[in-house]
Amino acid sequence: MTLTFDIDAPGKHYGHIRLPHSADDSAWGHVMVPIVVVNGTRSGDTALVIGGNHGDEYEGPIAIRHLIDAAEPETILGRLIAIPYLNTPAFMAATRTSPIDGVNLNRAFPGEASGTITRKIAAFVNDHLIPQSDLIIDIHSGGKTLDFLPMAVSHILDDAEQDHRCASAARAFSAPYTARLREIDDTGMLDGAAERAGKTFVTTELGGGGTATFQSAEIAISGLRRALAFHGIYDWPYAPRPSRALDLSDPDGFHFATHGGLLHPKVALGDTVEHHQPLAHIYDINDMQTVRKAIHAQRPGLIAARHVPGLIKPGDCAFVIGTDGGPLDFT
Amino acid sequence: MTLTFDIDAPGKHYGHIRLPHSADDSAWGHVMVPIVVVNGTRSGDTALVIGGNHGDEYEGPIAIRHLIDAAEPETILGRLIAIPYLNTPAFMAATRTSPIDGVNLNRAFPGEASGTITRKIAAFVNDHLIPQSDLIIDIHSGGKTLDFLPMAVSHILDDAEQDHRCASAARAFSAPYTARLREIDDTGMLDGAAERAGKTFVTTELGGGGTATFQSAEIAISGLRRALAFHGIYDWPYAPRPSRALDLSDPDGFHFATHGGLLHPKVALGDTVEHHQPLAHIYDINDMQTVRKAIHAQRPGLIAARHVPGLIKPGDCAFVIGTDGGPLDFT
Amino acid sequence: MTLTFDIDAPGKHYGHIRLPHSADDSAWGHVMVPIVVVNGTRSGDTALVIGGNHGDEYEGPIAIRHLIDAAEPETILGRLIAIPYLNTPAFMAATRTSPIDGVNLNRAFPGEASGTITRKIAAFVNDHLIPQSDLIIDIHSGGKTLDFLPMAVSHILDDAEQDHRCASAARAFSAPYTARLREIDDTGMLDGAAERAGKTFVTTELGGGGTATFQSAEIAISGLRRALAFHGIYDWPYAPRPSRALDLSDPDGFHFATHGGLLHPKVALGDTVEHHQPLAHIYDINDMQTVRKAIHAQRPGLIAARHVPGLIKPGDCAFVIGTDGGPLDFT
Amino acid sequence: MTLTFDIDAPGKHYGHIRLPHSADDSAWGHVMVPIVVVNGTRSGDTALVIGGNHGDEYEGPIAIRHLIDAAEPETILGRLIAIPYLNTPAFMAATRTSPIDGVNLNRAFPGEASGTITRKIAAFVNDHLIPQSDLIIDIHSGGKTLDFLPMAVSHILDDAEQDHRCASAARAFSAPYTARLREIDDTGMLDGAAERAGKTFVTTELGGGGTATFQSAEIAISGLRRALAFHGIYDWPYAPRPSRALDLSDPDGFHFATHGGLLHPKVALGDTVEHHQPLAHIYDINDMQTVRKAIHAQRPGLIAARHVPGLIKPGDCAFVIGTDGGPLDFT
Amino acid sequence: MTLTFDIDAPGKHYGHIRLPHSADDSAWGHVMVPIVVVNGTRSGDTALVIGGNHGDEYEGPIAIRHLIDAAEPETILGRLIAIPYLNTPAFMAATRTSPIDGVNLNRAFPGEASGTITRKIAAFVNDHLIPQSDLIIDIHSGGKTLDFLPMAVSHILDDAEQDHRCASAARAFSAPYTARLREIDDTGMLDGAAERAGKTFVTTELGGGGTATFQSAEIAISGLRRALAFHGIYDWPYAPRPSRALDLSDPDGFHFATHGGLLHPKVALGDTVEHHQPLAHIYDINDMQTVRKAIHAQRPGLIAARHVPGLIKPGDCAFVIGTDGGPLDFT
Amino acid sequence: MTLTFDIDAPGKHYGHIRLPHSADDSAWGHVMVPIVVVNGTRSGDTALVIGGNHGDEYEGPIAIRHLIDAAEPETILGRLIAIPYLNTPAFMAATRTSPIDGVNLNRAFPGEASGTITRKIAAFVNDHLIPQSDLIIDIHSGGKTLDFLPMAVSHILDDAEQDHRCASAARAFSAPYTARLREIDDTGMLDGAAERAGKTFVTTELGGGGTATFQSAEIAISGLRRALAFHGIYDWPYAPRPSRALDLSDPDGFHFATHGGLLHPKVALGDTVEHHQPLAHIYDINDMQTVRKAIHAQRPGLIAARHVPGLIKPGDCAFVIGTDGGPLDFT
Repeated sequence: MTLTFDIDAPGKHYGHIRLPHSADDSAWGHVMVPIVVVNGTRSGDTALVIGGNHGDEYEGPIAIRHLIDAAEPETILGRLIAIPYLNTPAFMAATRTSPIDGVNLNRAFPGEASGTITRKIAAFVNDHLIPQSDLIIDIHSGGKTLDFLPMAVSHILDDAEQDHRCASAARAFSAPYTARLREIDDTGMLDGAAERAGKTFVTTELGGGGTATFQSAEIAISGLRRALAFHGIYDWPYAPRPSRALDLSDPDGFHFATHGGLLHPKVALGDTVEHHQPLAHIYDINDMQTVRKAIHAQRPGLIAARHVPGLIKPGDCAFVIGTDGGPLDFT
Repeated sequence: MTLTFDIDAPGKHYGHIRLPHSADDSAWGHVMVPIVVVNGTRSGDTALVIGGNHGDEYEGPIAIRHLIDAAEPETILGRLIAIPYLNTPAFMAATRTSPIDGVNLNRAFPGEASGTITRKIAAFVNDHLIPQSDLIIDIHSGGKTLDFLPMAVSHILDDAEQDHRCASAARAFSAPYTARLREIDDTGMLDGAAERAGKTFVTTELGGGGTATFQSAEIAISGLRRALAFHGIYDWPYAPRPSRALDLSDPDGFHFATHGGLLHPKVALGDTVEHHQPLAHIYDINDMQTVRKAIHAQRPGLIAARHVPGLIKPGDCAFVIGTDGGPLDFT
Repeated sequence: MTLTFDIDAPGKHYGHIRLPHSADDSAWGHVMVPIVVVNGTRSGDTALVIGGNHGDEYEGPIAIRHLIDAAEPETILGRLIAIPYLNTPAFMAATRTSPIDGVNLNRAFPGEASGTITRKIAAFVNDHLIPQSDLIIDIHSGGKTLDFLPMAVSHILDDAEQDHRCASAARAFSAPYTARLREIDDTGMLDGAAERAGKTFVTTELGGGGTATFQSAEIAISGLRRALAFHGIYDWPYAPRPSRALDLSDPDGFHFATHGGLLHPKVALGDTVEHHQPLAHIYDINDMQTVRKAIHAQRPGLIAARHVPGLIKPGDCAFVIGTDGGPLDFT
Repeated sequence: MTLTFDIDAPGKHYGHIRLPHSADDSAWGHVMVPIVVVNGTRSGDTALVIGGNHGDEYEGPIAIRHLIDAAEPETILGRLIAIPYLNTPAFMAATRTSPIDGVNLNRAFPGEASGTITRKIAAFVNDHLIPQSDLIIDIHSGGKTLDFLPMAVSHILDDAEQDHRCASAARAFSAPYTARLREIDDTGMLDGAAERAGKTFVTTELGGGGTATFQSAEIAISGLRRALAFHGIYDWPYAPRPSRALDLSDPDGFHFATHGGLLHPKVALGDTVEHHQPLAHIYDINDMQTVRKAIHAQRPGLIAARHVPGLIKPGDCAFVIGTDGGPLDFT
Repeated sequence: MTLTFDIDAPGKHYGHIRLPHSADDSAWGHVMVPIVVVNGTRSGDTALVIGGNHGDEYEGPIAIRHLIDAAEPETILGRLIAIPYLNTPAFMAATRTSPIDGVNLNRAFPGEASGTITRKIAAFVNDHLIPQSDLIIDIHSGGKTLDFLPMAVSHILDDAEQDHRCASAARAFSAPYTARLREIDDTGMLDGAAERAGKTFVTTELGGGGTATFQSAEIAISGLRRALAFHGIYDWPYAPRPSRALDLSDPDGFHFATHGGLLHPKVALGDTVEHHQPLAHIYDINDMQTVRKAIHAQRPGLIAARHVPGLIKPGDCAFVIGTDGGPLDFT
Repeated sequence: MTLTFDIDAPGKHYGHIRLPHSADDSAWGHVMVPIVVVNGTRSGDTALVIGGNHGDEYEGPIAIRHLIDAAEPETILGRLIAIPYLNTPAFMAATRTSPIDGVNLNRAFPGEASGTITRKIAAFVNDHLIPQSDLIIDIHSGGKTLDFLPMAVSHILDDAEQDHRCASAARAFSAPYTARLREIDDTGMLDGAAERAGKTFVTTELGGGGTATFQSAEIAISGLRRALAFHGIYDWPYAPRPSRALDLSDPDGFHFATHGGLLHPKVALGDTVEHHQPLAHIYDINDMQTVRKAIHAQRPGLIAARHVPGLIKPGDCAFVIGTDGGPLDFT
């Protein structure tokens, strides 16, 4: 492992994952991914918490920076590995994908140690960090182009025991919504890499629009603490908050634009809509005499995600409609 | 005037302002600014309504496109001149300033007919459209980097009669907030060009973040209709909605960052804050051991605007705190 | 197949091939390739007609848009699959290769379903469209940097029956020239993918320079109709036009510049030249005292293609000299 | 004058106009404009011949490079000042305008000695070269985006004697067409700067499309020689070729697109058209179900110029229709 | 003045010059130029010390940052105004000129308060800082493209008293060389703005190549301290070091390339050369058979500056040859 | 082999390696790598000498251009293959890696004949040039971002005979330092490709900073001649110069920055340092109140390489400390 410190030394360590990157601006340079490790004075499991898998999502970086300031060896049982912005070059550029190689880190797993830089980052996580971790939390939001109802997510897994572990951890996160998904194709995702390794894995969607608000940041900060405390890694007085079940599994819930133009939304995030209800009008920006197009709801349900930019292109995801499953118990 | 149609012909006209622009991709080319003119069957004043003065603000374009579809000679008294996205190249590129010459259109007035393209646009509005208009409405929002409480705005003017005209028109717009400003320096702004010409002028700030929501679009659509109907140009059943006074005149209300980094807001738009209350923390993104910086409230009041991007740079406007003046009567 | 419509439903369908593309400007976005399918009311073969394989070639897009407007279920026997600009991102950017991944679509076959976007386009054509097609016509021109005598092309194939089918279809296209080629290396080309699948395949070179003229567009429009009618898929009164054979198989016919500079052509497209005749002078643009270089004909024959840009770089193809084979019969 | 040689020394001089340009890639750098001066062994007038005023027009550079190779003190009567590519940075980049400051040199006259680099070039020509010249020939073509019938051009001038001088020089050039223009607004043009100084001035449009052909290069080479010989500066056996008069003075002859899309031309350069005849169809490239738009002839006449790129934008010049004035005598 | 602190408050202040800059990435943003002011506990003159006038010169920023750490109210007599990188956007981008408006700050004086951002910086210095200063030191080096023998510089001024003041201050700086220049044209330079205001002004050239070495940084650090101490503003034990006179006033000393290519220097910085001696060979990089060109010394003397990049372009300054005036006394 | 000449023909040949590259600016274009081959009139081994493997290193191109001018069939015993700038596109752009595909050529071996252009270059060298060569010299320097003590380098190889051959050739080069390295991972390097093929291989590091000096060029020119003469391929009176051994094998010698900022070096290239001695200070450029960071020597020794740019980023190589092994004998 190319960490700039000894991960097994007792205490709290600030450092970097150092990945070789010979480039025009640095012949013998590296990409440096900030990482903090806290080895607890008490034994326990290892948690790996990740933000900035996409570089334009901010709740994860805020919650993890907050946790880094707070966590000390005395309050950790086992080990905390905290990476506030995993795709560091993308985070620095405020872009979803890497400005260096254009690669989406969450499509690059299991990575390639001799590949381009984003594949190197994936390989380091896959080969060195996932194997030693028990609980893995990868905090996402909608980025600059999508906005979500705040939710923690676990995947529906074939192994009932692992499925229960993951679902319980997501519920413990206590976001306003708790979703369960069956991923059709998790090729390249950190999610699948963690799950296939048998780990307890939780991800989230906690807002979006390339911003974080007071509310979305609070959900991330407290959710992260709750999930770690529930797992027994963080010594923090734990109690779950209310959360509602959300089902996003119907492919008809995804509404992709077929025309581009100026987007006039007719519904808001969190609205309940009827089947066939108009969700938005799209005005042609090149010809004002062209009749505006409408996007109609392909199913009834709850507006769980929406397109953020004022202009929309063909193929963009305009809305996601899910099903509100009502209040969730906590067990 | 280089309009592609005869502005004095009766009826409803779709066309362009055609401005010469000899460029690498078009030797004898032009920038074409879409414009619609409706000459009413009944006589009356002339209204000039403008969106897209900044290219990343969407409530104006939506409201004006909506109005263009609705307005017919039978419902207009006098003349409606509607320009949904005045800085067309910026709107097409989804940027605040022009991608061609980098100029901010709202700092380019009175323009220059032989200048770069943005100055040509300003000159056309200044020389040909403002002189023939009575009511001028320029719809703004926060753009990609700011988010505002929704407000219509009139400036405090020396001429009491004009001041009353403008303030009444802003109140008629009936946004949730109605602000009155004394502009320290309106050099280059369309606002000053219109006001110095004695016109009734209203501007707005109606949201931001590079998006429009169902709510912000509705405020713009109904506000525009209300202001036109109140002035007597649009035949539409008119009744004002409630609105609250907002005072943004205190320079101490503007909070500019002195450090860059990851912005963790501790308050939300619309919150009431105390003097010295922490508004946000800023985390250094280059060094996790640097102690986070705080932005404290320089005055008590209402959070009227906030910085949108998850990262902040030195000099960016982080927050604007105003004073809520309570419910406004309508006269 | 990710088509936005049911390809088997009767009638004429406008829609898109929808290819996932998660990018900075659209987290859950897609590239949308326009496609029109006409299922004939009478049974018959399936024709796949493609333009815009390279994004800066315009005769194909014009001819296919023209055909799309004209073709109706009543005039089609079997199925017409029409894609006016297959490399849609390149066509929108007016570039030969994709602005997204820099890949030349005609070097990307058989494609890769999980590759970059251009490889996804190739894979969709290869896996879903070629297998169900009988006649495949891929209309090319010279693009921005080459200009060709107008020709339809079939490859010399080992299977005599397929070879005859392809040659007859090319002759039916009735461009002013009809060429037969033996491709040395068709790695990555749509041509080879179609031919190896046993399909009747025709391609063309119909002009160039990043433009289409009245004449070149007419050759494409009528050639496409002729080839479809000859195959029995399009109900249109068919008669071939005269065409001359053209042989481009001699490697010595390709003249690549070894010096860069200002190109002064001494011959024109369609000229007949002698061996060793000067074809062009090249002036050094950095030093006016350097003696100009000459390109001499490496063989006698007909100037079948020429370099378009006024400047030339080392390695650019300056001219192609072929052999005029005289008038072709039609059988 | 900052020439790299003594312009008054006898003989033939190769050198540069050296213009200071302190830039990121050269702290104490200069833009160097190649220039050749031939001082004749016999006395006479001074001719200034210019190519590359726009950087993507190639007939001028070819003709002037050809002339530079040929002209010797023994064949010049007076002085020849030859500048093959006046906007050298644009020529090197193959763009119409300067890649350094984005300025169109032919809108930058009379220039500014302390302005950006293109204005410095204009100022040098205006202040140092025009005053000492008698005959000024500025060779233009259509560049990458326009294609013209080949023509030499003189402007209609108020001074009858100068008007006759210029018209005779244009006729002597003997391009296939000879046009006379009344420039409405020559602000910023080299043309006006030369004409107001009382000089004999000729310009041309000799093709376009970002290329030069054998034919267009020949017209430029022989035309330049003819005009110089006619003026008595170049010792070369002179005889005019036939030429036809062309009138481009009707503003209705200029056809600007109001819609963008894929351009399907229905007429060719040199065609004679009727009033209202369709000149081109424009297909919407974003929506194939939108009915194609047509451009109709605003007047009858001769197609004298056409848009080159396969795609067209609103505001682009699609066609210019002029009036063929029949064969010209030579006097 | 838009300083972020009260310049007249006692003590040491860290802050910024805040200049409004409304841009795509910050609607109500500013460019922030770091500035430190130390008000001495003892009275005295005001010194203004500036680095980073050009953004790729590093000795100034290092010396001023070093001084900022060291200077305290107890060691300052009067006031120290320290700006380590005046063209902050250029310094952050490591470029000579501003990445925002492309302007060279040292050609932008006296600036324009409503101009583009670099002109605003110049205006602030010109209008607010120069008037209140007595001693102004602007530390330059060669930047990425030039390398200099280390020298402090004063200009030859008409006012004998000011001339003596400036020359003495430059000598006090005690760089290895001390040069006196007569600037032909100081239009736009900070130098002239300071000198015309009657100030004691010193500038330097202290190396280059876009780097600082241990040696060049030491010369800047100790030179700055010496000059301040000599003037009586900085309480520091002062003694001049040896220095040699250098005369750069001969225009023939400046050697500009007329050919571009691969530069093979035949002399080194500090070498003494003969008239006509070859200084460098230039190899054509496009054609290896072209005979290499030579640059010959236009005068004898000392190589005082050299071109840094391995490739050279026509117009670049290849070498500057000055005259070594021998050891300087100190008075 | 796609050489533009017959490599086996007697004499001296100037030409190119021609590699197909179909791109937006040349549909049927090629990248042309200049190459010169001299077949000696006397028999002997084959030497392959390479410069410009990285495009911003200039000693190799100068030395090889110098050699190309000097070498004639009469002075070569066997064959000389000389490539002055192997990564031609990078050399033309003055960048380390290719501007076309972003690939570092020295990480691309053994290459891929159908890959992107840099991989094609590697494949040509690997498949066609290395196999026929006996002595291979690849001349490197530090490029724009590193500066080295001048050294010739051989790798420590398992085969004692080959090891001796390589070390002797490096010693014959007679740079001021001669280093022996054991490469931990030579994946993708030309070095390993040559060594695994059993060839006598020498590389160098001869300065840097994106420049060549008189001294560094002389070392390269005479070193190349010496190594060729020592091997018996070049008929040139040979005598080695003194050289010192340099050991760079200790990983602790590599000092990578963990903080970014303004770099103030406290030592110079060639200095001898103690363990723990401060090598540089790094100033935070965003906050002047942050305490500067120091880089301390991780071992004692000789400063053999240093970071060039004035700013440094986390992960950049700041210094390399080696061990001076004293004067080398020559055997």
